[in-house]
Amino acid sequence: MNDNVVPIKRGPDASPPTLTPILSLTATPMNAVNAIILDRMQSEIPLIPALAGHLIAGGGKRMRPMLTLAGAEVLGYQGTRHHKLAAAVEFIHTATLLHDDVVDGSEMRRGKSAANIVYGNPATVLVGDFLFSRAFELMVEDGSLRVLKILSGASAIIAQGEVDQLTAQRKIETSEDRYLDIIGAKTAALFAAASRISAIVAERGEEEEMALDSYGRNLGIAFQLVDDAIDYDSDAAEMGKDRGDDFREGKMTLPVILAYARGNDEERRFWQDAIAGFSTEDEDLAHAVTLIRKHDCVTETRERARHFAQRACNALSIFPDSAARRAMVEAAQFAVARGY
Amino acid sequence: MNDNVVPIKRGPDASPPTLTPILSLTATPMNAVNAIILDRMQSEIPLIPALAGHLIAGGGKRMRPMLTLAGAEVLGYQGTRHHKLAAAVEFIHTATLLHDDVVDGSEMRRGKSAANIVYGNPATVLVGDFLFSRAFELMVEDGSLRVLKILSGASAIIAQGEVDQLTAQRKIETSEDRYLDIIGAKTAALFAAASRISAIVAERGEEEEMALDSYGRNLGIAFQLVDDAIDYDSDAAEMGKDRGDDFREGKMTLPVILAYARGNDEERRFWQDAIAGFSTEDEDLAHAVTLIRKHDCVTETRERARHFAQRACNALSIFPDSAARRAMVEAAQFAVARGY
Repeated sequence: MNDNVVPIKRGPDASPPTLTPILSLTATPMNAVNAIILDRMQSEIPLIPALAGHLIAGGGKRMRPMLTLAGAEVLGYQGTRHHKLAAAVEFIHTATLLHDDVVDGSEMRRGKSAANIVYGNPATVLVGDFLFSRAFELMVEDGSLRVLKILSGASAIIAQGEVDQLTAQRKIETSEDRYLDIIGAKTAALFAAASRISAIVAERGEEEEMALDSYGRNLGIAFQLVDDAIDYDSDAAEMGKDRGDDFREGKMTLPVILAYARGNDEERRFWQDAIAGFSTEDEDLAHAVTLIRKHDCVTETRERARHFAQRACNALSIFPDSAARRAMVEAAQFAVARGY
Repeated sequence: MNDNVVPIKRGPDASPPTLTPILSLTATPMNAVNAIILDRMQSEIPLIPALAGHLIAGGGKRMRPMLTLAGAEVLGYQGTRHHKLAAAVEFIHTATLLHDDVVDGSEMRRGKSAANIVYGNPATVLVGDFLFSRAFELMVEDGSLRVLKILSGASAIIAQGEVDQLTAQRKIETSEDRYLDIIGAKTAALFAAASRISAIVAERGEEEEMALDSYGRNLGIAFQLVDDAIDYDSDAAEMGKDRGDDFREGKMTLPVILAYARGNDEERRFWQDAIAGFSTEDEDLAHAVTLIRKHDCVTETRERARHFAQRACNALSIFPDSAARRAMVEAAQFAVARGY
């Protein structure tokens, strides 16, 4: 490992890492990306921009297009081709969020009612399809077959990961390896592709392309692991509000996999019932949190996230030190440290 | 109009046109297309080929890939590039069918239980996404940006047409023009694109490309019009079984638009209640069929279909007479004549 690259810290931090540097780094091009997003989600059918805007205008961190923009910065790319491609990446992500909300029967997304609740499942499915098609139109306008190959491949992998997650749902015997396969597909594949395509528009070689792929992929896994940890890491008072969705849906995430593996017979029976959907009341969730704490499963999940975030940083070691690289490193540190 | 092109007949026929000539014309390459379809719907996630196979192996006429294959025949194209693209077209179509079944809450498709009934809405949405991504992977492998542009554009138009249809659902005031816009988008756009791309792989000029686009587009409208007519053209004994879905779902199709326009005050009140969803019992459907017969709306809808089928045939007049052209003409005749 190149010692220019800062190691990821363990545990809470007095001055915790933030996304501020990467947000500043990408603020100007992100305005251009947002303008493309707003322009290209338009349609003569008014329901389409209304529904798409409900989610897109609702914010979100724009993590994936940010990776495309940050990659261009670390490579010193001076053009603007990546703006359209970053918008395409966000459209693919938005399409998957809309379909996820239908699949999960979500009620909330980004702090407000999910699109499927406001507009119904049928429109939500179809507007997802529209945004997905628009993403490909944007890529075709750019004209790079390599970018099209990477993003169509990533899209197929995402869909497979989502189906795989559905298959694993309510199955207590899901292994850690299978869980990592699932999040590698449903989350990390688009992080990897978003990051990688910046090297293609910048016309760099295989080594830089794969370094950015690795940064994005490992960062995506770290983010997902910490998301999954946070869903079990709240005060009991908060439980039953915005946390615990994974528990109620019987999703097998790493904290549960670890707690089940470490549990005694009685605890394992609890998990079997809970994941099967027989014990999903607020008091069951509180008990789940107690067991996960008892076996240090949130800490352990964060430790795994630290491992992947470190790999993300290591992948950047082929690039010279720069404000862009430092911002990308801090984003990886943030991925692990957030939510403490 | 080139007088080589046979006009479309009116009314029932002693020896009705069939799809046999176009099926024979395309039988050998269709085997290659089917092999690609079966190969590329595979995945490590067993639920994906199971669900996709439920619909794909369940048959269907493969009309859209057949148009790509027939176009190649009429152009005398000798290569095999169009096989993958025809498979991509069928994957796009299959993805939209899966999503349609979720959107409409369908119970039956192609004579068996719809995928959403057997496998549930979540898996059906996600496998649709998978097939859509696979379609783009196949196109990227072929490598034509023009084909990618045409099919990504068609996909966006299909999604817009589906949303527009959803918006028009249960709205009795939907006009004939808006209805034609909707079916032009949700059905005819993919027929047009499927037909058109054969001219691109055959490296022909704009005129031949647009002639095949026009053939496919007008054929698609003719097929959809007759589908919509057939949904109201059954003996009362059959009603309530496999017909009348459009009526129960409050879909505004041409037979209803015509019957509403021609109805007296009492009839118009019936249609208002029925399309709004207040009168959708079997006896209401029987009454709807009676009104549609009284005002000759099925005949009139078929007459519109005849107009579009004739335009489809006229578009072929730039090509010399051949077995391929005759088969394509008979397919247009079939589109109008079927279901008598």
